[in-house]
Amino acid sequence: MNPETSPETSPEQAAREEELVARVVASFDGCEDDRLRTLMQALTRHLHAFVREVRLTEDEWGAAIAFLTAAGHITDDKRQEFILLSDVLGASMQTIAINNEADGDATEATVWGPFFVEGSPEIELGGDMSFGAPGQPCWVEGTVTSTDGTPLAGALVEVWEADEDGFYDVQYSDGRTSARAHLHTDADGAFRFWGITPTPYPIPHDGPVGRLLAATGRSPMRASHLHFLVRAPEHRQLVTHIFVEGDELLESDSVFGVKDSLVKEFVEQPAGTPTPDGRAVEGTWARTRFDVVLAREPQTD
Amino acid sequence: MNPETSPETSPEQAAREEELVARVVASFDGCEDDRLRTLMQALTRHLHAFVREVRLTEDEWGAAIAFLTAAGHITDDKRQEFILLSDVLGASMQTIAINNEADGDATEATVWGPFFVEGSPEIELGGDMSFGAPGQPCWVEGTVTSTDGTPLAGALVEVWEADEDGFYDVQYSDGRTSARAHLHTDADGAFRFWGITPTPYPIPHDGPVGRLLAATGRSPMRASHLHFLVRAPEHRQLVTHIFVEGDELLESDSVFGVKDSLVKEFVEQPAGTPTPDGRAVEGTWARTRFDVVLAREPQTD
Ligand SMILES: [Fe+2]
Ligand SMILES: [Fe+2]
Repeated sequence: MNPETSPETSPEQAAREEELVARVVASFDGCEDDRLRTLMQALTRHLHAFVREVRLTEDEWGAAIAFLTAAGHITDDKRQEFILLSDVLGASMQTIAINNEADGDATEATVWGPFFVEGSPEIELGGDMSFGAPGQPCWVEGTVTSTDGTPLAGALVEVWEADEDGFYDVQYSDGRTSARAHLHTDADGAFRFWGITPTPYPIPHDGPVGRLLAATGRSPMRASHLHFLVRAPEHRQLVTHIFVEGDELLESDSVFGVKDSLVKEFVEQPAGTPTPDGRAVEGTWARTRFDVVLAREPQTD
Repeated sequence: MNPETSPETSPEQAAREEELVARVVASFDGCEDDRLRTLMQALTRHLHAFVREVRLTEDEWGAAIAFLTAAGHITDDKRQEFILLSDVLGASMQTIAINNEADGDATEATVWGPFFVEGSPEIELGGDMSFGAPGQPCWVEGTVTSTDGTPLAGALVEVWEADEDGFYDVQYSDGRTSARAHLHTDADGAFRFWGITPTPYPIPHDGPVGRLLAATGRSPMRASHLHFLVRAPEHRQLVTHIFVEGDELLESDSVFGVKDSLVKEFVEQPAGTPTPDGRAVEGTWARTRFDVVLAREPQTD
C-alpha cells in the first residue's frame, strides 16, 4: 500500500495524484540554477507527500493559508513570527544540526532565536551588558580558543538575553537598548562581563504561533538562557546559548534548543560576597563560566 | 542508505537528526484534538525530511524566512500571495484532487485562485456579468443537473474572470466591481449570461512568488479561463473553471489547473450575427456551453 493514500483510495485516484506531483516537479526542470532546482523539486515532493498522507481537507488548507497570512501580518522589523514557527517545529534546530556537525571539542551551536539585532553597543572587558535591564547581576567569564587549544585574541563576543520580566529590549515599545552588547577577547582569549542571571520566558505567544502551541497543548516557555555569537578569523562562526543547570524547563524547551554540553552552573553568591572586579552589588549576585571552542573554517580551494 | 542523509553523513550525525525529529513529534503527543495532532506530527516529519534530504544551509533557511515574510507583507484583503504560492507548487490542485475524487459523471473541480470575492452582484438570467470590463462579448449557457440527470432549479452560479487586459476588478485600485456576478438557474436548471471571452493572463508576478517563478525559469501565465462556483442543496459545492479549446497555454498552466473535461469550445461569431437574446453587439462575439453536473453530498449520519 502506498503510504500516502488510504485503503479507500482507488488506484485511479492515486495515479491522478502521482501524475500531478510529477507534473509540478517537471515544471522546475528548466531551472538553470542546479541547487534551486534541487530545492524546489524536493520541496514539491515533500509538500505533496504531506498533503496526500493526511488527506488534507479544503478547510484545513484554508486554515493553513489564514495561519501564514496572520504570521506575515504580525511580522515586522521587531517581531519575526516565521522564525518562531520554524523554531517550534524544530526546523531551526534541525538546520543548525545539519550545518554544525560535531567537530571534535568545538562548542555546540543552537538556535538564533528571533531577537538578535545588528549593531549592539560595544562594552569593555568587565563592562555591563545589562544597561539597566532588571535582573540579578551575573558575572560571566570564559575564554575563546581554537580546537587545538590556541587562545583567540580579539574574538568578537556578542551577547543578548531577556530581562527578569521575560522580555528582550526590542519587545518594549520605548526603543530602549538593553541586555545586549558585544565585546572582544583580550590577548589571552579571555572575556568577562556583567549581565543578568537568565530566567525563563515564553516565546511571544500572542500571535498565530502562540495559538498553535495552545491548541496543541504545548507550552511556549523557553529554558533560561543567555545568547552568544562568537566570531574569529579563520574559524566557523558560532551561534549558541548557555543554559542554567537545574532549570526545570531544560527537558521541555519550546524550541528544542537545549544541548547537555551547553548547560552551565550558575552559582548564586550571598549578599555581601566580594565581586571579581570590586563592583558594589546590592543583594545576591551569580557567576558562571563559559569556555568557547571554535572549529576552524574548512579550507576552501 | 537513509535517503535523508548523504554518504558523508556519519551514523552519529544521522542519529542526532533522527532524535530531534522524534523529540518534535513527541512534543505534540499531548494534543487533545486527534486530527490536529495527526496534522502537526505529519507536518513535522515531512518538513524535517525535506530539510535533511536537501541538507538545507543556514543561508537557504534565512532565504526561506525572508520569502515567507515578503509574501506576508504583500498579502492584504485584495492580494493573497500564500494562495499563489500554494497554487504554483500544485498544493492547491492536489488538495482539490484529494477532496473531489471522481464521482461518476460529476463535473471536475479545479483551483479557487486568489480572486474570488464574497458578495458579488446578482444578475438576471441572460444578464451581463461583465459590468463594463473590456473584452469580446461572450454568451455562456448551460444547465445544472444532479448526477442522476435531475435538473437543479434555483442553483447558485457564481462566475468571475479577468478582463482582456488580464486583470480582475480587485487588481485595480479604483474599487470597481466588474466581470463577477451570481445568478440562479431557472425551473429547468438552465442558466445563461453575457460575459467576456477569456484571455490568458499572468498570475500577479511582481511579488515573491513571481520572483520565484522567474528564478526557476517558469512562466506566470495561466491558460485562459472563466471561474465557476455552483451550489445546490444536498449537493457537493463545485468550484471549477472552463478553459478555451485551442489555447496554447493549456499544457503549461502556471497553477496546474487544466483538466481535459473542462476545456470547452468557444465559437467566435462574425460581426452582425444575431445574438440569442436579440442584444445588439458591435463586432464579433463568442458563445460557449457548459453543462454542470453536481455530485450528491454523501449522507452524514
Ligand atoms: Fe532567547
Ligand atoms: Fe483566474
